[in-house]
Amino acid sequence: MNDVSSGGRGTPAGIEFWFEFASTYSYLSVMRIEDAAQRHGVPVIWKPFLLGPVFKALGMDNSPFVLQKEKGDYMWRDMSRQCSKHGLPWVRPSVFPRVGLLALRLALLGAEEAWMGAFCRRVMQLNFAQDRDINDEAAMRGILDELGVPAGTLARAADAPVKARLREQTDEARRRGVFGAPTFFVGTEMFWGDDRLDDALRFAAAAGREGA
Amino acid sequence: MNDVSSGGRGTPAGIEFWFEFASTYSYLSVMRIEDAAQRHGVPVIWKPFLLGPVFKALGMDNSPFVLQKEKGDYMWRDMSRQCSKHGLPWVRPSVFPRVGLLALRLALLGAEEAWMGAFCRRVMQLNFAQDRDINDEAAMRGILDELGVPAGTLARAADAPVKARLREQTDEARRRGVFGAPTFFVGTEMFWGDDRLDDALRFAAAAGREGA
Repeated sequence: MNDVSSGGRGTPAGIEFWFEFASTYSYLSVMRIEDAAQRHGVPVIWKPFLLGPVFKALGMDNSPFVLQKEKGDYMWRDMSRQCSKHGLPWVRPSVFPRVGLLALRLALLGAEEAWMGAFCRRVMQLNFAQDRDINDEAAMRGILDELGVPAGTLARAADAPVKARLREQTDEARRRGVFGAPTFFVGTEMFWGDDRLDDALRFAAAAGREGA
Repeated sequence: MNDVSSGGRGTPAGIEFWFEFASTYSYLSVMRIEDAAQRHGVPVIWKPFLLGPVFKALGMDNSPFVLQKEKGDYMWRDMSRQCSKHGLPWVRPSVFPRVGLLALRLALLGAEEAWMGAFCRRVMQLNFAQDRDINDEAAMRGILDELGVPAGTLARAADAPVKARLREQTDEARRRGVFGAPTFFVGTEMFWGDDRLDDALRFAAAAGREGA
């Protein structure tokens, strides 16, 4: 997606997509963003990060959906309706939030690769359509093999520099004011939540036209 | 709006609209709901309530937008964009959240009156377009007079039973799992946030057709 041009009307601004595999509303955006961005001619810049440390920095030792029962109860009902609206499969996961460290490290390695979108969608479906562990090596290997990702990628995900990069990217999220996921940036303009995906894409497309 | 029918396809389910004059996202819904509901042939059931006691019951001694700086900063930027998207005037209020006790009590008295929608819109514009006090008797009298509301209504708002009714309605919100505003109910189905207004209306319209 990184070489998409907007038909001679100038280079569109990219949309930075900050997401977490544990996050329910990130599931909606991961499933929708590549198609939606392509319709707007906007490149997607994938930014996996860890939501846990961000919540911790804000004084929460778990997801607000776990800490606030009312909000959590509502979120499950809302997710079911949103999935049905967008035609996405949905099974409420038996573990929430699920640790997705291995999947996130792999996503860091894939962020600029052609397999990134498909990889993220498979991981999300594992969590939210099949209720399966996303921190499991065998499951990740299965997805990577299926997508023809070069052997050795799984092993590289455990390298110290990759682990450090995920921590750095998480710190960057905090510095830029991210407080939940998904969050989108177009330049310095921030959009929070799957509900703002379309607004963010329109903003990016317009910014690209103005810059032409 | 209470006698709207859906063109012979059965009586549409009403949409309960739980809102607070202090709430920024309630501003968006108050300004939009009557027109939008009419397009769907759905009656609006107005449910003013106090957000403060609801937040308190959830362990927060102020709005989450005040308690969480990052979320608050984002909300102001988002509100400005949302108002521009919906063609609504917007001035960030110098006091937030504004006490709207008098306005809420008047809204209780007006909930089933023809002047309700216009009254609520004027109060919201006072707060979010003119940055003015909404707990002020003179300001409320000005709005009521302009709308031709019977004299004596302002005085009635201070009656003990009206005060008690607002507390009861607030308790009802808590019992039903409300954790923020605006919140919509169609029967027992709950929708949170201005972003779900259209979904809630579609749900209400469909429920009406199914019940035909």
